[in-house]
Amino acid sequence: MPFTPVSQHIILELTALVGKDAVFTDEENLLKYSKDETEDLSFFPEVVLKPKTTEEISAVLKYCNEHHIAVTPRGGGTGLSGGALPVHGGVVLSLEKLNKIIEIDERNLQATVEPGVITEVFMNAVADKGLLYPVDPSSKGSCFIGGNMAHGSGGPRVVKYGTIREYVLNFEMVLANGEIIWTGANTLKYASGYNLTQLMIGSEGTLGIITKIVLKLIPQPLHNILLLGSFPTNEIACEAVSAIFRAGITPSALEFMERKGVEWVVENDGINFNLNPQAQAFLMIEVDGANMDMLFNDCEIINGVLEQYQCLEVLFADTATQKEELWKMRRTMAVSVKSNSVYKEEDTVVPRAELPKLINGIKEIGFRYGFDSVCYGHAGDGNLHVNIIKGNMSDYDWTHKLKDGIKEIFELTVKLGGTISGEHGIGLVQKEYMPIKYSEIHLNLMRGIKQVFDPNGILNPDKIF
Amino acid sequence: MPFTPVSQHIILELTALVGKDAVFTDEENLLKYSKDETEDLSFFPEVVLKPKTTEEISAVLKYCNEHHIAVTPRGGGTGLSGGALPVHGGVVLSLEKLNKIIEIDERNLQATVEPGVITEVFMNAVADKGLLYPVDPSSKGSCFIGGNMAHGSGGPRVVKYGTIREYVLNFEMVLANGEIIWTGANTLKYASGYNLTQLMIGSEGTLGIITKIVLKLIPQPLHNILLLGSFPTNEIACEAVSAIFRAGITPSALEFMERKGVEWVVENDGINFNLNPQAQAFLMIEVDGANMDMLFNDCEIINGVLEQYQCLEVLFADTATQKEELWKMRRTMAVSVKSNSVYKEEDTVVPRAELPKLINGIKEIGFRYGFDSVCYGHAGDGNLHVNIIKGNMSDYDWTHKLKDGIKEIFELTVKLGGTISGEHGIGLVQKEYMPIKYSEIHLNLMRGIKQVFDPNGILNPDKIF
Repeated sequence: MPFTPVSQHIILELTALVGKDAVFTDEENLLKYSKDETEDLSFFPEVVLKPKTTEEISAVLKYCNEHHIAVTPRGGGTGLSGGALPVHGGVVLSLEKLNKIIEIDERNLQATVEPGVITEVFMNAVADKGLLYPVDPSSKGSCFIGGNMAHGSGGPRVVKYGTIREYVLNFEMVLANGEIIWTGANTLKYASGYNLTQLMIGSEGTLGIITKIVLKLIPQPLHNILLLGSFPTNEIACEAVSAIFRAGITPSALEFMERKGVEWVVENDGINFNLNPQAQAFLMIEVDGANMDMLFNDCEIINGVLEQYQCLEVLFADTATQKEELWKMRRTMAVSVKSNSVYKEEDTVVPRAELPKLINGIKEIGFRYGFDSVCYGHAGDGNLHVNIIKGNMSDYDWTHKLKDGIKEIFELTVKLGGTISGEHGIGLVQKEYMPIKYSEIHLNLMRGIKQVFDPNGILNPDKIF
Repeated sequence: MPFTPVSQHIILELTALVGKDAVFTDEENLLKYSKDETEDLSFFPEVVLKPKTTEEISAVLKYCNEHHIAVTPRGGGTGLSGGALPVHGGVVLSLEKLNKIIEIDERNLQATVEPGVITEVFMNAVADKGLLYPVDPSSKGSCFIGGNMAHGSGGPRVVKYGTIREYVLNFEMVLANGEIIWTGANTLKYASGYNLTQLMIGSEGTLGIITKIVLKLIPQPLHNILLLGSFPTNEIACEAVSAIFRAGITPSALEFMERKGVEWVVENDGINFNLNPQAQAFLMIEVDGANMDMLFNDCEIINGVLEQYQCLEVLFADTATQKEELWKMRRTMAVSVKSNSVYKEEDTVVPRAELPKLINGIKEIGFRYGFDSVCYGHAGDGNLHVNIIKGNMSDYDWTHKLKDGIKEIFELTVKLGGTISGEHGIGLVQKEYMPIKYSEIHLNLMRGIKQVFDPNGILNPDKIF
């Protein structure tokens, strides 16, 4: 059944539910909310709503459910899989006004936030109290915690601290029909029926709208050391990754960067970094903890491993500024690649010791299809972001042949025990690749769950499957 | 629709699927599989099957689904909520023959096991390779990893290392209709559609049968220190719990024990322990890590906190034997209480700083209803096992009035931000209390999910809701 177009009458009724200041139909807003950070896609909503309370969201969903109007929830708009794009028009429901940190509970090491809180704002607020919330995607300066939840976000510290999945204890959600539930309890353990909290994480706004989140916090580690090793080939750098863990070290970050990415960042972002001409790949390694002697000891062990893997040189970031600079290099890489070329980003993930096979395979597939790629990512988790560069590929091949190449990359990923997205989600742009990973039986279970939560299919329609 | 009774003809057909040596209808087996560790409940199955392969399980489920025969999956039979009891007779499907450790992958720090592997056997196997699998319920010597998954099990180390939820990467399951899927990928990150792996954890055998499990492993910490502090009251001991975390320490175990529990263990299990006459409550605290100096430093901080909370004395376990003895004291407490009195065990969990309110409330409720209780548990997680002792309560009150008292305990738990089970699950015996925690809307979502996975309702019927 097609969705109901948003008439002037409907806009008036929605306005009655959320107030005039929360309803937007001007061109500027419609354009802004037609996009996220996913390549060049654009789908215009018919109306943008920016409600301020759970109750308003409940009223909107109840109305849209009864009138069969498509609702696309939206966080910070930093998604890389098109998850926030209103492909059927309808309502974009932005959570940006639900942006309060409701409580930081130092007694229980927990916090309660609204979904529109910017991740970095929250990280800083808890850091001020000596606490750590370690889920920091590259987009932390603009992404929302609600969006992080919807995508099961990670970031560089997953390798030691886990994804957002390990920090969400409980949340309030509005169901498609407007009903409101809390999914779990504010506890570190929970064995009381099906875990809807965990099911919702990564469901990309297709099962309900998150309106409050209870998060676990941990003590802030007092010290960290950051180092950068350079390697003669991608493969050797990737081999060093799992060797570090096998030596008994669990770094707080272990990032891989290909030379081309570093070159572009150095050129575009004025980062002061002396590129060794032999270096083809880099590992950025951070260890953290309460005791500097222990960290120096960890670094000695890491150094020993790197030497075994033909490491060309190791750079220690001595000062806070140097650390900042190195992290900036890694964090701006996505934007830098984007500004250099038409590109597509894929978010592959495999068991970490399979990284060498993955990166070699990607290059070999690129060679056959005629595309170049810049790879970087959270190598400690086996998570490699593959930026496919249009370069000299013809427009025809880019539009028609590339898909087969991407399909081959995902087939390789799955063959190596991995999956087609580690942290970016499926959204719109990856859903055609889902059958590579999932049987129809498996997809039907997902569709069945969707049907239970959203029988009329109004929530973020046509995403994931 | 009532389930089909298991006729002689059905037994012959099941025998054709799994072989004669896997079908049991003798009295001894039927009696054994009529019980688990839950109080005094007993429900006889009509037949016990002990298949050896995923394919056999698939064939059994397909058959039972088509013939509407109830199937109750069973792990080690150590459950405390009646989850493995065949309340409708039918088939008990024991996973005990699927007991192989298929692979310990040291390159990726992962292992693949069958569900019937005994938890401690697996822990020892990975420890031999310098690795840690930290999910160790008290029943680790006899419970199965598959059962741990079905219940989302924890144990004393959750406080630092997390529950089994953080160690399961992927698994193979057989659906009610016999179809076989893998739920996820062998990766540390996963943002590829609804997370069926996480949904299945804690689903108590109602959604499918687990047949292979991929687990994450971590490096074994080299050292640990174990200490025992004694306190003048339960409340003060519970207050010290959250203070330890606020001092920046994350212990690898933080267990609470009430005096009565310790007394019984000392009497029954011949444990050599000198009970201070003033001590009413105990905290067992373990720290672990790579460096003894750091651990001594942690212990100094902990000592400082304990002093602030009127700690009477602190006992350090100096040798491996002393550590063993202290852990034995804690681990045998459930069995010891059971052998001393008719009892009921409840598995309350709250945010950890609410423990003092919880334990005071439990005692106050007990006083009003006339029951005594022995409390102990994973205080670091806010998880308190409440052993309600029949003592002088009349049989009539025990049968008729106690329920209201338990209801009040759970109402208090939920009011404090907690839930009605932290790690034992709902199974049969807690399901009547589910409405304390969940609205009908919430329960209907769970029922809807059940319907998607098991439309004929053959898998572990009448459990959870």
